Amino acid sequence: MFEAVELGHKVSKKAFKERVPRLREALLNAQGRLRSSKFPVILVFGGVDGAGKGELANLLAEWMDPRWISTRAYSTPSDEERERPEYWRYWRDLPAAGHIGVFLSAWYSQPLLRRVHEETPDDFERRIDEIVDFERALADDGAEIMKFWLHLGKGAQKKRFKSLEADPLQAWRVSKRDWDHWRLYDRFVTAAERLITRTSTGFAPWHLIDGGSYRYRSLRFGELLLEGLTRRLDMEAATTTVQPGPAVPELGGETAEDGFAEAVELPAAQKEPDEGDDPAPITVLSRIEMPPPLETPPYKEALQKYQGRLSQLARRAVEQKVSTLLVFEGPDAAGKGGAIRRVTHALQARDYQVISIAKPTDEEFAHHYLWRFWRHLPRDGRVTIFDRSWYGRVLVERVEGFASEREWRRAYAEINQFEEQLAAHGTVVLKFWIHISKDEQLRRFHDRENTPYKRWKLTDEDWRNRARWTDYEVAVHDMIERTSTRRAPWTIVPGNDKRTSRITVLKTVSAALTKALGD
Amino acid sequence: MFEAVELGHKVSKKAFKERVPRLREALLNAQGRLRSSKFPVILVFGGVDGAGKGELANLLAEWMDPRWISTRAYSTPSDEERERPEYWRYWRDLPAAGHIGVFLSAWYSQPLLRRVHEETPDDFERRIDEIVDFERALADDGAEIMKFWLHLGKGAQKKRFKSLEADPLQAWRVSKRDWDHWRLYDRFVTAAERLITRTSTGFAPWHLIDGGSYRYRSLRFGELLLEGLTRRLDMEAATTTVQPGPAVPELGGETAEDGFAEAVELPAAQKEPDEGDDPAPITVLSRIEMPPPLETPPYKEALQKYQGRLSQLARRAVEQKVSTLLVFEGPDAAGKGGAIRRVTHALQARDYQVISIAKPTDEEFAHHYLWRFWRHLPRDGRVTIFDRSWYGRVLVERVEGFASEREWRRAYAEINQFEEQLAAHGTVVLKFWIHISKDEQLRRFHDRENTPYKRWKLTDEDWRNRARWTDYEVAVHDMIERTSTRRAPWTIVPGNDKRTSRITVLKTVSAALTKALGD
Repeated sequence: MFEAVELGHKVSKKAFKERVPRLREALLNAQGRLRSSKFPVILVFGGVDGAGKGELANLLAEWMDPRWISTRAYSTPSDEERERPEYWRYWRDLPAAGHIGVFLSAWYSQPLLRRVHEETPDDFERRIDEIVDFERALADDGAEIMKFWLHLGKGAQKKRFKSLEADPLQAWRVSKRDWDHWRLYDRFVTAAERLITRTSTGFAPWHLIDGGSYRYRSLRFGELLLEGLTRRLDMEAATTTVQPGPAVPELGGETAEDGFAEAVELPAAQKEPDEGDDPAPITVLSRIEMPPPLETPPYKEALQKYQGRLSQLARRAVEQKVSTLLVFEGPDAAGKGGAIRRVTHALQARDYQVISIAKPTDEEFAHHYLWRFWRHLPRDGRVTIFDRSWYGRVLVERVEGFASEREWRRAYAEINQFEEQLAAHGTVVLKFWIHISKDEQLRRFHDRENTPYKRWKLTDEDWRNRARWTDYEVAVHDMIERTSTRRAPWTIVPGNDKRTSRITVLKTVSAALTKALGD
Repeated sequence: MFEAVELGHKVSKKAFKERVPRLREALLNAQGRLRSSKFPVILVFGGVDGAGKGELANLLAEWMDPRWISTRAYSTPSDEERERPEYWRYWRDLPAAGHIGVFLSAWYSQPLLRRVHEETPDDFERRIDEIVDFERALADDGAEIMKFWLHLGKGAQKKRFKSLEADPLQAWRVSKRDWDHWRLYDRFVTAAERLITRTSTGFAPWHLIDGGSYRYRSLRFGELLLEGLTRRLDMEAATTTVQPGPAVPELGGETAEDGFAEAVELPAAQKEPDEGDDPAPITVLSRIEMPPPLETPPYKEALQKYQGRLSQLARRAVEQKVSTLLVFEGPDAAGKGGAIRRVTHALQARDYQVISIAKPTDEEFAHHYLWRFWRHLPRDGRVTIFDRSWYGRVLVERVEGFASEREWRRAYAEINQFEEQLAAHGTVVLKFWIHISKDEQLRRFHDRENTPYKRWKLTDEDWRNRARWTDYEVAVHDMIERTSTRRAPWTIVPGNDKRTSRITVLKTVSAALTKALGD
């Protein structure tokens, strides 16, 4: 069955450059539609080592909005996992409706390896039954399941390992275990054929992809995904108009780029006076100098340099089990998302998660406001990026009056204690305030209004927040003054030029990691 | 500071018997009020080994409704816990608003032991600061924190160990470690004095209790708890009428003893015809013979016998790391809660949890319907009791039309697969349908109406469900037929006589555990 995908498919550089931007835009659009729909998407990767599974997961998080994508890779079970049924760890990681879950070395990994190494055909068939049952239960409940098998011929796999080993920056990707598996190639492929045949069901089909060429497999994967997503979304749109189901509550939600979806229109009297009437207070933000824009060549050079450095540092951090926690705050349209993507670009999808903070769920609301951040803390060696964070307490909640003065005042100490515990555990904690001027924000708002695929990013709430610009400036000033500690410092990033701000972030993260990891 | 509590307080058997029922009723009432209020209760136990901390936690779960109490005891951190800051494990176990969290050997345990064994006073003070900060953050957010220090004099502790060792049923409670600690008694008490003095704050006070006598410490604890709860609840009642805060969503909720709070009044046409018109189908339930009521002396004897046996078996299960999962279903007022309490009476509070299934939270609603059960699966060796369960899918959701026919029909297979995985992991899975006749239910409903402290148990929904008695019988019949498997069998318990049904449950659990644990 694999012959058809061993044909050495190629895509020219030119075709790739032409097709990718269109594909990305379409994928982002589909994701936008997905976020307000009632089903989760589950993407499973399988296939030969070295065929680019991890790379595709990275690419996905880069092409689409990583805030609604979670990537999980599994190795030896933790002791808490061992003490429950085998599938417990997959159940607990299942994405919620509107989200995409990417699963690497997940429920297909063990059955296949065991079959190659030791197990009898009977055991193998039993495990396959379990897989089918599991996927059927998820699909029946509405999950859209797509599975991608990345294939390489035996010769192509060997060649790929050799070429990786020849590149000093990539050699770490090839282990002794990979070569051991390669020697078992034929057994592996025989078992895989059986596995794919039996688990390629209507509700959870496998897509075979030739993994030989980066451009081909990336495009093919993206297009298959787009096709599957679009088909499903169109189907939903067609049926839901006829019989609307119960509304699914949003998790990590939608319009609420700013942490609070329930903000209400303010009575006119409370609104800020127009600019001009208002003697703006002097805050740390008043003094930010916006550097001149970075030209394209030096930007690209710097980007490559710092992403390369960060990539190596992140790998060492995994080995040394040092966690990193990055917080991004800033006015609407400051470019937080863009800066975050430049960071995640340097990371393996399995090693980071981006947590987008929106309206709390009802479980979160029934606990201390810090509880929902504690629950997302990563295990050692991983990077967690918060797009908005616990600082909402002293920013939006203070300004909008969602928190009482007593509540937000004591939050400074609570936050410092929280971050102190992280730092004491050895976690690298960095906080970025990406700042833009009020004029620059207006320019970007208009740009969003006028660009079709950016329009969803601009909400009424953004305009409301803008009307309170001065209040926010004061709140930010207090926040930075009270919570910038030696162990968890704030970095104020001038953001009018997006390129400069991205490089500043990358440099700061690299420097902090270099220090934390020693020599 | 401990002299005052070493006075050998006693309570006569007679006084105890008189005061306990009143105390229990008052505690249950307070818990009822708590469940609709906006704050969680955190109870921390500390003190000398052998002074009865675990016993008090057990007693609490027996006196009050265990469905809204979680008890956590901590030992060596799991690997997932070690890879996060020290307090992560406490944060994730914090109770939600309306719930009570009981913490044993929690955040006071390590600081004290380290001080006794190795650490410097400076380290100790730093750890105390962390404790105070943690508790302050919780209290500021509204948590009611009460801490109970159980004390024994050095001589009394020795005597208690000796007497436990002399009792074959209790000897396991005393370990070499306990004697090692006893030899360090004076250092322990010195450190404890410092710890208690510094952490006895207005927002999280310590209550010292003389642990020498069972009756005294039980009553004293119950009365202190009642006093604290009542004071707080009265205060809330006084303030909330003036300025109502945002409504806290209910978790594991309130009126919804039956799994679905959002049930709406049905249009009359859909209602069951009155009894009499209705040719009742023959189901497994039609054939249940209700045995004659058990008299008091044989009941008490049997209760003692089977609870004793279960207690020993549960201890072995912890050692052998065998988990148990018990499901209780049945018509309203069938006596599920009573049967559950007879089981938990035989267990250590730290070794079990009771999960009461009500309306799903929004996070749960955004996942597969089984997800919320997977997330509660216990680690090895513990007992998890579900008061209502995933069977709601084929009972209330089927009968009320919350699930489509396709959904509930496929649920049989999904449930069997779920339970199969539990059984394959080695978990003992038992399911009880406690049945009562329609007449008996009516009698109990009237009884609830006429007894002040039972009145909250009866809701309009109970009457609505009763009107659909026949529909439920059919659903139960199908459920038992399709989901009673060898590895996860249903036991149909005749429930008209509560005593018989409790003994049946205890006997069944003991027999299954005996088999699972071997000889």
